[in-house]
Amino acid sequence: MIHAAYARIKPVVRRTPLLSSPFLDEIAGRKLLVKPECLQHTGSFKFRGAYAALSGMEGAARVRGVIAFSSGNHAQGVALAARMHGTTATIIMPADAPELKIENTKALGAEVVLYDRASEDRDEIGARLSAERGLTLVKPFDEPLVIAGQASVGLEMAAQYEALEAEVLVPCGGGGLTSGVALALSEARPGWRVHPVEPEEFDDATRSLVSGNREENTRRDGSICDAIITPSVGKITFPILRKHCAAGIVVSEDEALQAMALAFSRLKIVLEPGGAVALAAALFYGSKLSGDTVIAVASGGNVDAEMFARAVGR
Amino acid sequence: MIHAAYARIKPVVRRTPLLSSPFLDEIAGRKLLVKPECLQHTGSFKFRGAYAALSGMEGAARVRGVIAFSSGNHAQGVALAARMHGTTATIIMPADAPELKIENTKALGAEVVLYDRASEDRDEIGARLSAERGLTLVKPFDEPLVIAGQASVGLEMAAQYEALEAEVLVPCGGGGLTSGVALALSEARPGWRVHPVEPEEFDDATRSLVSGNREENTRRDGSICDAIITPSVGKITFPILRKHCAAGIVVSEDEALQAMALAFSRLKIVLEPGGAVALAAALFYGSKLSGDTVIAVASGGNVDAEMFARAVGR
Repeated sequence: MIHAAYARIKPVVRRTPLLSSPFLDEIAGRKLLVKPECLQHTGSFKFRGAYAALSGMEGAARVRGVIAFSSGNHAQGVALAARMHGTTATIIMPADAPELKIENTKALGAEVVLYDRASEDRDEIGARLSAERGLTLVKPFDEPLVIAGQASVGLEMAAQYEALEAEVLVPCGGGGLTSGVALALSEARPGWRVHPVEPEEFDDATRSLVSGNREENTRRDGSICDAIITPSVGKITFPILRKHCAAGIVVSEDEALQAMALAFSRLKIVLEPGGAVALAAALFYGSKLSGDTVIAVASGGNVDAEMFARAVGR
Repeated sequence: MIHAAYARIKPVVRRTPLLSSPFLDEIAGRKLLVKPECLQHTGSFKFRGAYAALSGMEGAARVRGVIAFSSGNHAQGVALAARMHGTTATIIMPADAPELKIENTKALGAEVVLYDRASEDRDEIGARLSAERGLTLVKPFDEPLVIAGQASVGLEMAAQYEALEAEVLVPCGGGGLTSGVALALSEARPGWRVHPVEPEEFDDATRSLVSGNREENTRRDGSICDAIITPSVGKITFPILRKHCAAGIVVSEDEALQAMALAFSRLKIVLEPGGAVALAAALFYGSKLSGDTVIAVASGGNVDAEMFARAVGR
């Protein structure tokens, strides 16, 4: 499935380079390579999975259109993938989502349906619209086609860097990207170790890998790393993480902001806090790693000017 | 020379991608592709020419070491290229250069010699050090090996985009990058039109192309686009510009800052003001262009947090 998905998305996906800086190597204490998915279409890796899902679904279903629940990066990925397939995307967003995200999703051609978090049930709205219009739900991570699409990040890394050993750090929310990368590398680079990376207080994947069960976060929101906050890892992604990943690494919000500032000054890329956690782990948790090379996925850059200024103005 | 230089630098230079965004296409009124040389080693295209010069010089001279005058991007490019060749770089900088640029150049292994602008003659210092140590001067733009190295930006573009027609916009200071790109494309893509782009009040190349003579700028400093400010285009670069370039385009400092903000929000890259002028021309001077595609070189991203916040906080 991973190779089939890559064959479908390769002509349209941006093959992001591996970036590096001697200044970052020095902080990390080893060679540090960064895979900047902020440079991907729509500013995050999410476009890969969304396009894989749209291109992999049955033709008649695709013509009827797709639906997704998201106020963030998944929404924009699905919107652009749908437009590129000449079909419609309906995105269900909370009415209090940031205006810019709503506008961006609309500008990519999606129909945005807003709901009131306090008085309305988003699942009920989604079920009704799906039934009325025959729409297919594109889940953000717990969906094989989406995982297979995100796996292309791992396939590209393996093609770009040939060493037998490396540590690979991946920002982890629901686990779609982490499980995809781990699956791809388990075949292409079996000597590489893949670690999910999470922000403090939202370390469900790390705890789940320790306990062997899908652990939940106590808090559900309130993190600046909003792009990678989920109640828990997925039912489909967790067994993959368990089989193919090494231990999780947890970083603080402050460390994520520091990583954003260093990505600005040394790599000239724009990261959002959630997209910077793996880079933060590579820079500040070298003691948890072995070997002479670490590859950090920088998963997204959809951050507003105020938050970015807060990070780089430190 | 261009193909020979590319063969030497290809294994070490970063092949920057072509980035795009539907939001920027809409502003530009046509397909807009951005070549982000901010992602190049040392944060600007200058590394290409510096490495081409070091790798192309006679071996015994290289062993004795190189010298350069620069407080900016050329200094860092020469420092890293020298380190990669296992030789020494001596960089002569004004004592009042930004501390960060001095520190970065030192951190890349160069010996930085500071001089007092008011009381000392930098050329005299350079001549004395060169004589004492047998150093070879690496000029920032008016040097065939350097121009041949910068031309690799044009070769990469031609390999990355196959259309018969396109407008190519290049930030222009001394003309090393612009002349190199124009030369490379004159062979690889003869139907493409290359335009130098400059900031207001420092439009020497644009005026020189009109008059047919090397015109000088009245002002010598005081622009936020410091990376591309020179008294005039070079003696070697000007005849190339005259033979191979279309008319120059002049943008305001404010437009360069707007382009930085849009590169931040839509492409997730960090540009310095001088590195953003060609993107500004693509976005705001579409009336001066024809055809359905414009390619803008984003030549560098070495900007401090304060200036960047000023641009994106607009």
